[in-house]
Amino acid sequence: MTDMKRNKLTEVSRQLANVAMGQAHADLIIKNGILVNVFSGELVEQIDVAIVAGRIALVGNADHTIGEQTTVIDAAGRYIAPGLLDGHMHVESTMLSVTEFARAALSTGTTGIFMDPHEIANVFGSEGVRLMHEEGQQLPLKVFTTFPSCVPATMDLEDAGASLSVQDIRAGMQWNNVVGLGEVMNFPGVVFGDPQMCGEIEATIEAGKTVTGHFPSDDDRMLQAYLNAGVTSDHETVTREQGLQKVRLGMHLMIREGSAWHDVKEVIKIVTDDKVNTSNISLVTDDVNPQTLVELGHLNHVVRRAIEEGVDPVTAIQMATINVARYFRMDQDLGSIAPGKCADILLIDDLHRVVPSTVITDGQVIYDQGQYTVELPKFVYPEHILNSMNVKRELTADDFKLASRGTADKTEVNVIGAIENSARTEKRKAVLPVVDGIIQPDLQQDVIRLACIERHHGTGQISNAFTHGFQIQSGAVASTVAHDSHNLIVMGVSEEDMAFAANELVRIGGGTIVVRDGKVLAQVPLAIAGLMSEKSLQEVVQEVTQLDEAWKKIGCPLNAPFMTFSLIALPVIPEIRITNRGLADVTQFKLIDVEIG
Amino acid sequence: MTDMKRNKLTEVSRQLANVAMGQAHADLIIKNGILVNVFSGELVEQIDVAIVAGRIALVGNADHTIGEQTTVIDAAGRYIAPGLLDGHMHVESTMLSVTEFARAALSTGTTGIFMDPHEIANVFGSEGVRLMHEEGQQLPLKVFTTFPSCVPATMDLEDAGASLSVQDIRAGMQWNNVVGLGEVMNFPGVVFGDPQMCGEIEATIEAGKTVTGHFPSDDDRMLQAYLNAGVTSDHETVTREQGLQKVRLGMHLMIREGSAWHDVKEVIKIVTDDKVNTSNISLVTDDVNPQTLVELGHLNHVVRRAIEEGVDPVTAIQMATINVARYFRMDQDLGSIAPGKCADILLIDDLHRVVPSTVITDGQVIYDQGQYTVELPKFVYPEHILNSMNVKRELTADDFKLASRGTADKTEVNVIGAIENSARTEKRKAVLPVVDGIIQPDLQQDVIRLACIERHHGTGQISNAFTHGFQIQSGAVASTVAHDSHNLIVMGVSEEDMAFAANELVRIGGGTIVVRDGKVLAQVPLAIAGLMSEKSLQEVVQEVTQLDEAWKKIGCPLNAPFMTFSLIALPVIPEIRITNRGLADVTQFKLIDVEIG
Repeated sequence: MTDMKRNKLTEVSRQLANVAMGQAHADLIIKNGILVNVFSGELVEQIDVAIVAGRIALVGNADHTIGEQTTVIDAAGRYIAPGLLDGHMHVESTMLSVTEFARAALSTGTTGIFMDPHEIANVFGSEGVRLMHEEGQQLPLKVFTTFPSCVPATMDLEDAGASLSVQDIRAGMQWNNVVGLGEVMNFPGVVFGDPQMCGEIEATIEAGKTVTGHFPSDDDRMLQAYLNAGVTSDHETVTREQGLQKVRLGMHLMIREGSAWHDVKEVIKIVTDDKVNTSNISLVTDDVNPQTLVELGHLNHVVRRAIEEGVDPVTAIQMATINVARYFRMDQDLGSIAPGKCADILLIDDLHRVVPSTVITDGQVIYDQGQYTVELPKFVYPEHILNSMNVKRELTADDFKLASRGTADKTEVNVIGAIENSARTEKRKAVLPVVDGIIQPDLQQDVIRLACIERHHGTGQISNAFTHGFQIQSGAVASTVAHDSHNLIVMGVSEEDMAFAANELVRIGGGTIVVRDGKVLAQVPLAIAGLMSEKSLQEVVQEVTQLDEAWKKIGCPLNAPFMTFSLIALPVIPEIRITNRGLADVTQFKLIDVEIG
Repeated sequence: MTDMKRNKLTEVSRQLANVAMGQAHADLIIKNGILVNVFSGELVEQIDVAIVAGRIALVGNADHTIGEQTTVIDAAGRYIAPGLLDGHMHVESTMLSVTEFARAALSTGTTGIFMDPHEIANVFGSEGVRLMHEEGQQLPLKVFTTFPSCVPATMDLEDAGASLSVQDIRAGMQWNNVVGLGEVMNFPGVVFGDPQMCGEIEATIEAGKTVTGHFPSDDDRMLQAYLNAGVTSDHETVTREQGLQKVRLGMHLMIREGSAWHDVKEVIKIVTDDKVNTSNISLVTDDVNPQTLVELGHLNHVVRRAIEEGVDPVTAIQMATINVARYFRMDQDLGSIAPGKCADILLIDDLHRVVPSTVITDGQVIYDQGQYTVELPKFVYPEHILNSMNVKRELTADDFKLASRGTADKTEVNVIGAIENSARTEKRKAVLPVVDGIIQPDLQQDVIRLACIERHHGTGQISNAFTHGFQIQSGAVASTVAHDSHNLIVMGVSEEDMAFAANELVRIGGGTIVVRDGKVLAQVPLAIAGLMSEKSLQEVVQEVTQLDEAWKKIGCPLNAPFMTFSLIALPVIPEIRITNRGLADVTQFKLIDVEIG
């Protein structure tokens, strides 16, 4: 059993039994609510829940457990539901620290997460994972970690800040509350027997933990080979057919609704139309940005989306509670309201809105009627984690000028074609003017400069290329959120502004920025590893809103351009990417020249 | 992960993946059947299953995996179902060795059992458990053991052959394929914090294994206290209301259909009428006698009974496959037909009859069209296990004569009232004649002699009492199957025949016997610990049939009198029992005098 750092069941069994028998009093009683029973799949009226020592002692009529010191919450007319469990997510996507994320998520009813700290792992390796994990352990939110499996994402195309070996995975599996291996993205590696992938999976299975997956392909044979390796889940399913096939093959299907991924509408049809058994299906967020947290909520939004698509509310809640707990083999402690379980409980007024009016974790009311009733502890990251920019020199406009190999006044180049609302890119070509031997961008064709600067090891290495699709007319943007290696990416019309944006980001310790004519239009400082802010959700949302405005000001009409931009250096999704080493053709998994011929 | 003593998934993943990808050939293909998909809850037509190295490599179209060496089974028109898993049973009830039981059970489609070798544990302690467990490990049947939790059943009322301590449980949890703690029958002990019960449960949970339960009471508060201890299942539910309550409280509900327990009809109403979610419900046999195995089958009969009561066949099969595997956290290997799982597969012609025409375990056809295609290995028990009768003296008629304390020619005595088809007894009284100071039986009142002889430690200890209800008119019966301590019980009209029956059983090494006028009418020798036969199912059934006839010959008209008799020494079920120490009043948990006043 994973150590909960809370009261273990066996430590408090006697207390619980005594309360159930009426020989001792409960700490807290929720009185007369409508129980969302995730076991039977029913709504059961007139239910009390008696709690002591952080766990549930009795469900039913609890009058005999009330003493003078017992707090009684009247739940008449309200639904009593288990706290929601997000089976797959990256906290880094929220740009918040784990603590600030918890503050946002707990108020929406998420009481447990299974996070994959893949982004910080690319910057700081095991140490980064350990720090986020430790930050999580002191919170009322239950934070479980799946150890990142693919760091770096590629071996030969780029330089990340760190790498994780099989030995690192094996060691991580021994940490308390590390419950599995993070999404195994390198599915071809698994299918074709890459030793590192196989070693990581074996280490996880040997430790008795769960191997979570990532399988975005339609290839049925590869899917079956992937399952044969011992990977047991997927959250990359976007079609009903894929979803049905994965459920039929026994894969735990995580249906995702993130800020950018809206998979519920299509994939939930396997429940509403195909009527498959739902016990091996769950709902996850994967990636949510701070605005979504504020505007729509967290996992409760995904549950709501499933209900909107026609899923019975109890079934939808099962898919965000008991099903998740069972998948991770933690249903003895989590995911339901029953004797012996951790008292992580929501009181909900409207079962279709799924917004809790009261949130209880470990038997304590932590949030009630829009207000926190507890303080969250502070977590201080070490200095070097807050100083992750290792570039060692000022960048200049000249750094962003790409010389032509030839002497002609035009040259044909490969161009990274960005696609709105998509993680994919398109491999395009363009003929660009050459002036004084330097290949020039061409606003007429919407082809602008793009660069990637190695920022982890102080090598000063920079690669230059061109991109199409952002429609920027002036200024520049830069970001240290640049999946997965999180080097420093810069894009712009003006080389001077590109240098300015990059230098500013180095100065503030990472983040994302929009500049024009030597002035900062907006910036989101992300001091923690260049990925996460030290500020509150409200402050981050305000900064991000200003950033979005600034993208518009420099001419970009795209929806969520920051996201499209932050994925432009991800050399595992087709077709073409930039890395610190150069231009990567992801259809061939090799570096190619910018100039053609 | 529990070691399967078969190919672990990680050992053969590469082979499986290569077959799935068409880069290697399957060993065996089941072609074009109708898949019972226990994940989606569907029947899916035109499905192939490709198998290599004992595991399933691919489910779907497997044409690309066929090579010259591949065996192809045409399954057109047949159902492909996972092998059935019995989540709770006692092999000893079948009177067969584990090997002979396996021979009977495999042919009916049971490919895995979770046995509780509670009976042999009462005779030979951990050593007995280990031997039956080891016998199981070499079979095509997957034998998992839940370590007996309550040996002996009581501390002060009787003497068993052995006892199991918390330390024994802790040690047993380290054995391969010991997957949990056997039914925790001492539920008051659990509820009120008995240190041994709590210690055993804690040792099991610490080992990451499953604590199986036994909760026959209607007391809701005690049920919740029992759950608070970490016990997670029950198979003693006999009413719809109890079943519904247990499912709602998150208890894994095992619905039982044994030879004597017919619980499906009533309890399955929670599925057919209350329509509860079935994912946490399974079907078990608990105790089946050899005749039932021959006449009705094993777990397939329970599945059939559920279907007869209106359960969808796919749901019924889920309750005997994936639900069981998930409860024991072994669904990564067992309980379904999907890539990577052990190839334990049934081909079934009629989904409502649930009789397999072909049985495959670990990828090998072991049974086909009524014939075994493999030899089962022999298991030889050590000599002392086959010589478990330690009585050390000839019994005589005088041993069975109970002297009156008084001098009157009549005396009032307590009488054990046997109840047909029930495990309960009734505390009765009778006035009996006293002749020459000896209390006499009285056939007019149907009150006859009953004795219990300590047979494990050679103490020669004997207790005498009287019983009502068997209606025996002559002769005597004796048995070493005498739950739970399995001492030597003897009942009869003639003291001489009682001594003869007892001496005969000692001579043949235990079993059960009916005698009259110094002649054996029938006997079932049970050489293994006095509990199990070394013979085949057919031979044992023949012997048991003759035994039943012999009971009738001496006048007993009851249904299954052997079972009623074998429970007469069980001092944990009300109201009154005999033990080797005397007459036990189970309503007060103390020994009482036979004579009243």
